[in-house]
Amino acid sequence: MKQKSMDQQDDVPLVFVHRPPSFHFPFKDRLSTHFNLLDPLDSPDSTHFVRRHANSIRVLLCVDPTPISSDLLDLLPNLQLIVGSSVGVDHLDLSDCRRRGIAITNSGVAFSEDVADLAVGLLIDVLRGISAAARFVRSGFWAKTGDYPLGFKLGGKRIGIVGLGNIGSQVAKRLEAFGCIISYNSRRKKPSVPFAYYANIYDLAVNSDVLMVCCALTEETHHIVNKEVMAALGKEGVIINVGRGALIDEKEMVRFLVRGEIGGVGLDVFENEPDVPKELFQLDNVVLSPHSAVATPECFDALEELIIFNLKAFFSHEPLRSLVELE
Amino acid sequence: MKQKSMDQQDDVPLVFVHRPPSFHFPFKDRLSTHFNLLDPLDSPDSTHFVRRHANSIRVLLCVDPTPISSDLLDLLPNLQLIVGSSVGVDHLDLSDCRRRGIAITNSGVAFSEDVADLAVGLLIDVLRGISAAARFVRSGFWAKTGDYPLGFKLGGKRIGIVGLGNIGSQVAKRLEAFGCIISYNSRRKKPSVPFAYYANIYDLAVNSDVLMVCCALTEETHHIVNKEVMAALGKEGVIINVGRGALIDEKEMVRFLVRGEIGGVGLDVFENEPDVPKELFQLDNVVLSPHSAVATPECFDALEELIIFNLKAFFSHEPLRSLVELE
Repeated sequence: MKQKSMDQQDDVPLVFVHRPPSFHFPFKDRLSTHFNLLDPLDSPDSTHFVRRHANSIRVLLCVDPTPISSDLLDLLPNLQLIVGSSVGVDHLDLSDCRRRGIAITNSGVAFSEDVADLAVGLLIDVLRGISAAARFVRSGFWAKTGDYPLGFKLGGKRIGIVGLGNIGSQVAKRLEAFGCIISYNSRRKKPSVPFAYYANIYDLAVNSDVLMVCCALTEETHHIVNKEVMAALGKEGVIINVGRGALIDEKEMVRFLVRGEIGGVGLDVFENEPDVPKELFQLDNVVLSPHSAVATPECFDALEELIIFNLKAFFSHEPLRSLVELE
Repeated sequence: MKQKSMDQQDDVPLVFVHRPPSFHFPFKDRLSTHFNLLDPLDSPDSTHFVRRHANSIRVLLCVDPTPISSDLLDLLPNLQLIVGSSVGVDHLDLSDCRRRGIAITNSGVAFSEDVADLAVGLLIDVLRGISAAARFVRSGFWAKTGDYPLGFKLGGKRIGIVGLGNIGSQVAKRLEAFGCIISYNSRRKKPSVPFAYYANIYDLAVNSDVLMVCCALTEETHHIVNKEVMAALGKEGVIINVGRGALIDEKEMVRFLVRGEIGGVGLDVFENEPDVPKELFQLDNVVLSPHSAVATPECFDALEELIIFNLKAFFSHEPLRSLVELE
């Protein structure tokens, strides 16, 4: 596709691109047909580039959870909207955005099904030992040593969902089909939900066999799964985390696992990604996933649609989808 | 528990135990409180032991899928019932049993949920690469080489279930919750089932992204997944097998996988267990499971209940559960 030069694109809406240096987002070409993408990292002097365009910029596309400093926001006095590409918005200072009158959209439900699928996959894996048994077979141990240890049944397990938003609801829907018993914790009780509600995660853990951690990372939820919660969950308890690494006190979790004080974990996220605590590599009741809950082409297609929808909606003064609540 | 000697147990119903030499079935103690278990392998001379009790034996408990020869059946002229402990009955000669007037019960629905859970777990694993990605993280590659390749979404996948019995129905129920589209092949169309029916597996494969092999192994279903079916399924197609190894032409499957002519497989069963074709050990789109679909304590508890129920029912002339159709 032949692209117009920037000077020819004065009639095309400007979108400022904020991305990690190493990330070349896959839908850049398609976005370029609708919008004039200003990407400072494409310029030899990015600071100068930003200053030159600063006053024209009303929309920022934030690719991946790339932190946005208040210094950058200071440079963009006319910014009205940040279009995010992730579910979590912990890389943004929400109160600062509210103060500046900047709206934020996230990936909304585009990722929910894929993240829920992976969460359920990790749970089946931890309970039934799929990836540990796969290593056992691949190492030739099946033929040499005989049967692999028993796993645990999904049906009848009490599943405590931490954060019953888009992802948590999809997790609940799937696990109900396995005969699991669902309850949840969230900031507020959801009026139209048939599951038992616990106002705090400690009570949820006491009454659950499994915690599915699906909530957003905020100041309030940082280390929401702490040692008291893990102790309440107990020796047979399982934790699955598809939210953010810092939702769990990772150091404490490693201690609980090493001491056998918790049953197992399935983790797609870690506190210092891509670094994973080495102690976990030796444990067969631990399933490690490289933050790939959203890593399907279908997910990226859905995200691309949503981003283009929101950018077009903004420039034509239509309502936006998946606005983040800036309370 | 103190057990009575055999001579004191004349009033206790006799149950003949047929098991593999290495297998000590976990519910022997509990069965012993209700029945007088005659286990030839407990005797120094098993042939003599069988002959001595032959005429008294009306019920045989077959532990694991242990083959029963017609020579053994010749020795037991009054045998009326074989109580099996597996779903599959490919280790028994059904027409010979029918001819002799011997009824057979299998494990019925005791295993269905656990087998379906593992089948779904294997499918999520193959599509999303869970166990391959877990090896990637454990080997330290995430921190060194960056992102793991994308997987595939479950939602919208066309799932072809081969054998819509107890297990296949449970698989369908689960995968509907993931937004999959279900169709099936079985000997006969099921009247009360909403899914599309294909009278042969080839047409099912043409119209499916995934084949879930859940049927019994019989003469008719031996190598039901042959090279024509695999070619019909195509390069992106996935096969999950929780039935029996010989339902798939394993040598052809290995060729298809090595040549990249099929998308991936998740296998709990193999033609020559516990031997697994070595070529599979190198492939990341292959998830290998050591015939552990039924390996949960809950499964064994349910099986124990069913076996005791059927043995008691037999001796009190009550209807049996999970009778195998001897057509």
